[in-house]
Amino acid sequence: MKVELINTGSELMLGRVLNTHQQWLCRRLADLGHVVSRQVAVADSGIEIQTAVREALSRADLVITTGGLGPTSDDLTRELIAELLGRKLIPNEAVLAHIENFFTQRGRPRPSKTAVETYVPEDALVFQNANGTAPGLAMKIGDGGWRPASGELHAHGHAAPEPRSRTPAPKWLVMLPGPPRELRPMFDKFVVPLLKQEFATKIFVCRTLLTTGIGESRVQEMVEADLQPLVERGLDVGYCARPGAVDVRLTAGGATAEALVRQGEDVVQRLLGERVFGFDDEEIEQVVVKLLIRQKKTLALAESCTGGLIAHRITDVPGASEVFLGAVVSYANSAKEKFFGVRAESLAAHGAVSESVAREMALGARERFGADFALSVTGIAGPGGGTPEKPVGTVFIALASPAGVEVKKFLNVWDRATFKQVTATQGLEWLRRTVSA
Amino acid sequence: MKVELINTGSELMLGRVLNTHQQWLCRRLADLGHVVSRQVAVADSGIEIQTAVREALSRADLVITTGGLGPTSDDLTRELIAELLGRKLIPNEAVLAHIENFFTQRGRPRPSKTAVETYVPEDALVFQNANGTAPGLAMKIGDGGWRPASGELHAHGHAAPEPRSRTPAPKWLVMLPGPPRELRPMFDKFVVPLLKQEFATKIFVCRTLLTTGIGESRVQEMVEADLQPLVERGLDVGYCARPGAVDVRLTAGGATAEALVRQGEDVVQRLLGERVFGFDDEEIEQVVVKLLIRQKKTLALAESCTGGLIAHRITDVPGASEVFLGAVVSYANSAKEKFFGVRAESLAAHGAVSESVAREMALGARERFGADFALSVTGIAGPGGGTPEKPVGTVFIALASPAGVEVKKFLNVWDRATFKQVTATQGLEWLRRTVSA
Repeated sequence: MKVELINTGSELMLGRVLNTHQQWLCRRLADLGHVVSRQVAVADSGIEIQTAVREALSRADLVITTGGLGPTSDDLTRELIAELLGRKLIPNEAVLAHIENFFTQRGRPRPSKTAVETYVPEDALVFQNANGTAPGLAMKIGDGGWRPASGELHAHGHAAPEPRSRTPAPKWLVMLPGPPRELRPMFDKFVVPLLKQEFATKIFVCRTLLTTGIGESRVQEMVEADLQPLVERGLDVGYCARPGAVDVRLTAGGATAEALVRQGEDVVQRLLGERVFGFDDEEIEQVVVKLLIRQKKTLALAESCTGGLIAHRITDVPGASEVFLGAVVSYANSAKEKFFGVRAESLAAHGAVSESVAREMALGARERFGADFALSVTGIAGPGGGTPEKPVGTVFIALASPAGVEVKKFLNVWDRATFKQVTATQGLEWLRRTVSA
Repeated sequence: MKVELINTGSELMLGRVLNTHQQWLCRRLADLGHVVSRQVAVADSGIEIQTAVREALSRADLVITTGGLGPTSDDLTRELIAELLGRKLIPNEAVLAHIENFFTQRGRPRPSKTAVETYVPEDALVFQNANGTAPGLAMKIGDGGWRPASGELHAHGHAAPEPRSRTPAPKWLVMLPGPPRELRPMFDKFVVPLLKQEFATKIFVCRTLLTTGIGESRVQEMVEADLQPLVERGLDVGYCARPGAVDVRLTAGGATAEALVRQGEDVVQRLLGERVFGFDDEEIEQVVVKLLIRQKKTLALAESCTGGLIAHRITDVPGASEVFLGAVVSYANSAKEKFFGVRAESLAAHGAVSESVAREMALGARERFGADFALSVTGIAGPGGGTPEKPVGTVFIALASPAGVEVKKFLNVWDRATFKQVTATQGLEWLRRTVSA
């Protein structure tokens, strides 16, 4: 089975927007055993979109398009594909009702332009959009093979798909809306069941072990020799470095896949131990919140150089309010004094980025919020503010708990945004190990 | 002139890595007047790479590939393209010297695997890699039109490029290494001058106006009639919805491009007024920090449902420490009382998500931090916690300033992550308008 993706959008071709659909959809499809063989991005133009869809349908069993289903004048995908396939667009009452309801809930009148979104190609499956107005669409194409609606579309010197000697299996064309917050839940709710129903499931097992605290080459050095016998039996091992974390990806196909991946997982767990903080799509903040809820413990934060990022990551986890009391982002020194009782002498003697200030921030936050655990971070994010003794990237992290307070020093030499992420992950990782201990 | 990109890499097709080359190269090329018409990603496999290159060369005047030039077993692009074009690979002394020097500088022996990188297709331009070992390569293809090396490559039912009746202009194939820190400086140093020399410079102007506060359809309704005369003269208009914001993109080419885009910008500015918060790559938090710095005013935040996100966005802006004093993320009610002096009676009578608590949070934060402006946010992010009177998505935002305090109510019905982004943008937008007033 061949799968291709087509991302439409002039903003992609002008480089104004980062294409995140490619990675997300490729990942989800691989997890279902379908590795995408080609991904194409084209502008919102008739000939480009129709050519790309026609070519993809000539090669693949499943073609997924993204974008161009909205209400504005450059949203052309629905119309162009209906034309290409020779299907009429028919108004759909359920979609209209859904869109009316969307605006009613938000207390706004329905813009007349959204009318175009209620037109659906004949015989298409409709995926209602839980987070927007434009529905997704899926069409089964031909039990006798796909034929384009019109010979005029054979531009660019390409031949039409070869006539097939046997009756081919039907193909599916799935059209998803462009905004990620609309596309992703729609894919999981509607497309995954469709794929399971329409295409023979292939056994493909993928397990990602999420590690933190050591670099990519070191991770590989630690595990590759012991994984080698499994690799020889068909296990595929990949390493991927992310800010502050390294993923170890184990994949295999076929009848022995499950066993191979499980044995690989055992090897990695044994060798990396507690450096493995989670699996697959888990985030370290999800692990931390889960542990705190399980142990009925509360958390407070005192953030300086991470600027609220740790609180933001913690509060992205549903249910965080059970255990997270709050944070103070004390950017100014006066805020460190006022909110945590950090002593003016500590600030004067050691500077805001110092072991003693980190310690006083953590103790102050624990006491003021009345929390079981308090994490504090103070450092120099850059690009300015470094000195020879404390270069850009210097960070002190302190953790106050019922057992007392400890401080660690790090040097995170990265651009500002990566610095914040790496530092937040270090703090969360320390918290994870302390809470789970 | 047509330009196409080909990104190679099995990790892309497995969705384990985000493809950032597409956006970066498309943007750079558009700035040079060359809008990419198609971008393709394929796995590191012989048939996929050769098919993609062959097809791209049949359509485009310039084809740029990324990836597959390194020393490991899955780096196949150089060999596959040389084979496709019927060019020999010849050892290159300058590349060998560069690689030897690369390792000498780092005090390491040259790994024997790098030998493959010293082989270069005959008649190729060589771009030495300032940040790695594998050189970039560029080949001028045919003054008599491009012909594939072998008929065997016509797989997949595609026809060969049509024979041309006139002598076509030569095409260029450029091959760049995969790591962004190698590709980007190499593109700027070598490819930009090559393009300027080989292809007539085209005038292309792109301006994006960033708006917030109204939806995508409404934005278009407000501007399209007045933009129409400019569209008829060649202005291209695009709309792109992001969480809490809508981009209006104006592009044009040719001699009148500058004037057309400027006139379009005037129309959008006149009709959307202060809903336009910025231009091109600006973020609303950058605009807010810039305004505060210019006016020498300070800011404090009291965040509940946004959980630190506003502070995180503000502190992503270099220089934020000049104006940002800090934030309290008061997730627990006790934190609202303790840090802002929110009265227990207000919490009891109206609940934490209420106009009076938002007001007391903003006033408390302004006073405790000693700031000129204080923004507070309290609401229900969901998925749990809604009631019939205060459904999930209910938000109160208050802004305290030297002029007093005001509160606004919003209903942001989104998933948790989008809710936080949209709410943060609403607060920042209010701040922007107030500070700039």
